[in-house]
Amino acid sequence: MTDAEIAHQHTLLPITTIAQQLGLQEDEIECYGRYKAKINRRSRSDKQGHLILVTAINPTPAGEGKTTVTIGLTDALRQLNKKSIVAMREPSLGPVFGIKGGAAGGGYSQVVPMEDINLHFTGDFHAITSANNLLAALIDNHIHQGNELNIDPKRVLWRRVMDMNDRQLRNIMSGLGKPSDGTIRPDGFDITVASEVMAIFCLATDLQDLKTRLGNILVAYTKDNQPVYAKDLQAHGAMAALLKDAIKPNLVQTIGGSPALVHGGPFANIAHGCNSVIATKLALSLGDYVVTEAGFGADLGAEKFCDIKCRLAGLTPDVAVVVATVRALKYNGGVAKDALSLENLDALRAGLPNLLKHVENLKSVFNLPVVVAINRFNSDTDAELELIRQAGSTHGFEVALSEVWAKGGAGGIELAEKVIQSIETSTKKFHFAYELSGSVEDKIRAIAQKVYGAREVLFNREALDEIARLKQLGYDQLPVCMAKTQYSLSDNPKLLGCPKDFEITVRGISLSAGAGFIVALCGDMMRMPGLPKHPAAHQIDVDQMGNIVGLF
Amino acid sequence: MTDAEIAHQHTLLPITTIAQQLGLQEDEIECYGRYKAKINRRSRSDKQGHLILVTAINPTPAGEGKTTVTIGLTDALRQLNKKSIVAMREPSLGPVFGIKGGAAGGGYSQVVPMEDINLHFTGDFHAITSANNLLAALIDNHIHQGNELNIDPKRVLWRRVMDMNDRQLRNIMSGLGKPSDGTIRPDGFDITVASEVMAIFCLATDLQDLKTRLGNILVAYTKDNQPVYAKDLQAHGAMAALLKDAIKPNLVQTIGGSPALVHGGPFANIAHGCNSVIATKLALSLGDYVVTEAGFGADLGAEKFCDIKCRLAGLTPDVAVVVATVRALKYNGGVAKDALSLENLDALRAGLPNLLKHVENLKSVFNLPVVVAINRFNSDTDAELELIRQAGSTHGFEVALSEVWAKGGAGGIELAEKVIQSIETSTKKFHFAYELSGSVEDKIRAIAQKVYGAREVLFNREALDEIARLKQLGYDQLPVCMAKTQYSLSDNPKLLGCPKDFEITVRGISLSAGAGFIVALCGDMMRMPGLPKHPAAHQIDVDQMGNIVGLF
Repeated sequence: MTDAEIAHQHTLLPITTIAQQLGLQEDEIECYGRYKAKINRRSRSDKQGHLILVTAINPTPAGEGKTTVTIGLTDALRQLNKKSIVAMREPSLGPVFGIKGGAAGGGYSQVVPMEDINLHFTGDFHAITSANNLLAALIDNHIHQGNELNIDPKRVLWRRVMDMNDRQLRNIMSGLGKPSDGTIRPDGFDITVASEVMAIFCLATDLQDLKTRLGNILVAYTKDNQPVYAKDLQAHGAMAALLKDAIKPNLVQTIGGSPALVHGGPFANIAHGCNSVIATKLALSLGDYVVTEAGFGADLGAEKFCDIKCRLAGLTPDVAVVVATVRALKYNGGVAKDALSLENLDALRAGLPNLLKHVENLKSVFNLPVVVAINRFNSDTDAELELIRQAGSTHGFEVALSEVWAKGGAGGIELAEKVIQSIETSTKKFHFAYELSGSVEDKIRAIAQKVYGAREVLFNREALDEIARLKQLGYDQLPVCMAKTQYSLSDNPKLLGCPKDFEITVRGISLSAGAGFIVALCGDMMRMPGLPKHPAAHQIDVDQMGNIVGLF
Repeated sequence: MTDAEIAHQHTLLPITTIAQQLGLQEDEIECYGRYKAKINRRSRSDKQGHLILVTAINPTPAGEGKTTVTIGLTDALRQLNKKSIVAMREPSLGPVFGIKGGAAGGGYSQVVPMEDINLHFTGDFHAITSANNLLAALIDNHIHQGNELNIDPKRVLWRRVMDMNDRQLRNIMSGLGKPSDGTIRPDGFDITVASEVMAIFCLATDLQDLKTRLGNILVAYTKDNQPVYAKDLQAHGAMAALLKDAIKPNLVQTIGGSPALVHGGPFANIAHGCNSVIATKLALSLGDYVVTEAGFGADLGAEKFCDIKCRLAGLTPDVAVVVATVRALKYNGGVAKDALSLENLDALRAGLPNLLKHVENLKSVFNLPVVVAINRFNSDTDAELELIRQAGSTHGFEVALSEVWAKGGAGGIELAEKVIQSIETSTKKFHFAYELSGSVEDKIRAIAQKVYGAREVLFNREALDEIARLKQLGYDQLPVCMAKTQYSLSDNPKLLGCPKDFEITVRGISLSAGAGFIVALCGDMMRMPGLPKHPAAHQIDVDQMGNIVGLF
């Protein structure tokens, strides 16, 4: 059965029932149809659940199933009578029509209604798109109407966004036509999830903080080299008005009946890749076990989750779950994609160091207890699974098999039990990979050397110049958001496994002053995906009954 | 008090109460928060209310208050114990941040909650934006991925859209950058309400009809001069999936407590300017008196309402209300904008022919009974009002004063009574301005000569070539959507009053094959507005309580 078929077989509870089970009052939720709601309540500091981070080895074309494990673990905890909640990211609309299909989990570990969640949901991303593009229109209008601020049209940093995979818009020349049609300048569109507004949305602690951060967005430089902020254009109030409802967390449910807060979803390369702080904090005040995930592998996602999100929000994760598959480890060990179903212990042994490095980072750098979840496939052999268990014994981490795709929460009981046990027995105390007081270069070195295992960090001229400029502007005490390939611990996507003795090159630095981090660019980052030759859109349709088909 | 203050003073009924009063079952509505809902029910043919069209004289900078009268008349009918419903257009987000402010009526004749309705509402326009831009991305992706259909990149007709006033995007060059970044070609953005998807959305009779029409959109020509349709790109199924929920009518309420179906909102220049057929038909099956409006003055809005919307949907209007103000008539009579508050009977007499022409058109061309509603201002003198009443006696139409802005429904009782009386006593039988079987030129001539009062219609070369092409493609039996200035009965915005002996020049023809009409362009049409020097966005904000302020 497809994910959609499994989701459709399931009878959903009214979202009001899920809300009641969470202890929410009737006036604390706003329904969006029968199975979605926004929660209109602030988190309370008097209650604090346990925070479980689900992360993964470096992603491979074989697929790891991190979101599926995140949802399945939540349902498994619920089967063990724990008040569990999943706090996860909203899917982006654009990729749904490309290769990816949906992004709401899979099999019997999904959040539902999956079509709604994958398409417009409650309109959050549309609101973010509008806020981003209102700022862009105000910048260009300011230039067009006399340019009192003396903005340099060639140094407008703010790009427009669209929640669509549309390579045609990556680089454009805008303002063509007649004199009344604006100012000719190079311009372009990113996908909405790459907008700094999205990153701000996910880091803001409330609506007023959101507005302040929106005002702090650096949008351009003047011809005299002075920074121009969104607040200089009086844009942040109207932007916040557009986001007033979006900022309230969304409540849906898993197929297993667990409450799910699905809210926000910034890119994990040029942004920090975690769901909203507001939703995570609310979940912690409503439940005893909150399961959340971070984008890409642990080198990017978990590091940013800890050093950016948790630091900013004052959150303390209790345990990290690292998702791996036998297939992905063999891929890391050099096996071709079409040979992953064959038993290959040598390749598995060769790929294991990738897992070991991530586990070691979480244990030693961030000082977290770790459970490894092996997302089981039919092709996995007993010998392969045993090899991973042995590695766990040797290197001192728990290993649990996950069969949540096929069995829902029942397939994650071993994992849930080991997660609970780790939380209950751990004496570790969470810490960050670096302190904010160091120089920008030192912070980047700390991440690259401690987390990635790099020998050295090289900074090119543009990066050093920009670091100097940011220091002058007083931004050098911000955390760093690394923009690096997700496929390798290094900045070379072809170096799989656990590369050694490599250099990381920082090619550029950019400032997300509103979000509150410095982006270190280690290579070209894709900010606007394209569609493939045979886009998923060709299969997506509505049937005679008005149901969506072809969305997997 | 501002409109926002009046709206905030009012205590809204839960939307479920409004739905119950309409006789809707619980499973026939989907709430979006407490005061908005989508209606999940098809109209029934066994019941049919009266359809009241509200239209106006040619718009002036003085303002006519057509939407306010539409809402106030609905509330007045309700005060007379009639089951009245207003079926009106959704506001566009873009203009809210420009000059216009909100578009949900005014004073004590508003639909509420006004902030929600003016901003994202239930996300319909965002869904339309997404569907439009998915088609654009699929076209460019097709060209990029090998261009099997042989689309000519210089003859892509389909433009992208954004719900924003952003002149910078009117004319762009897209596909710049690297070879992987698409195909360099001239391109541009319209505002969402100008999208053909919006026109289709408002003319579709159900989701399947919507999908068929989306597939019929003409998007480009091949290098061999052959038409390329959205269905050739397999785009229409996914576009319909994006619009699956949006197509359900939205239910809100007026300050007077009447149910309001607010749904769809196409441009009234290059499209037909009326709310959705689905909502109008549903309202007619739920209420006894349905009040609806059409964009701009009666020459554009009422004509398209009758010849396009009513023809397509099989609707029969029972009466037309023509909204005018003393001020706007004096403006039509040549008075400057800053002198409109002074009594000026000569100017009023000079401007009256504009009103008389519209009334005569509705009575003779469309064969409808007519009531003129004078939207009263404090500056109107008794002598001025008396002069209009006398014109009514002389020319055989009813005149009613409207004070619905200041008094809500109570200010529209005289109007409501005359509307009811007209419906009950009229023996007129609605007909169209032209039949579909004539040539495209004849249909345009019929509108221009009968409705506008033109002496002659000139077609330039491009228009004639395009008419020939459309005939060859088999589209010459469609109705015509005139794209003409709204400020004059002629195609010259400076010819106020009732111009005589003028020519109309058709400069271009374009095909909206999905919507099902031919657009005749009489002058440059604005498809993407810009922001003014001091945009309303500067004042819009959220206060400490999280409420939106500065939105009037």
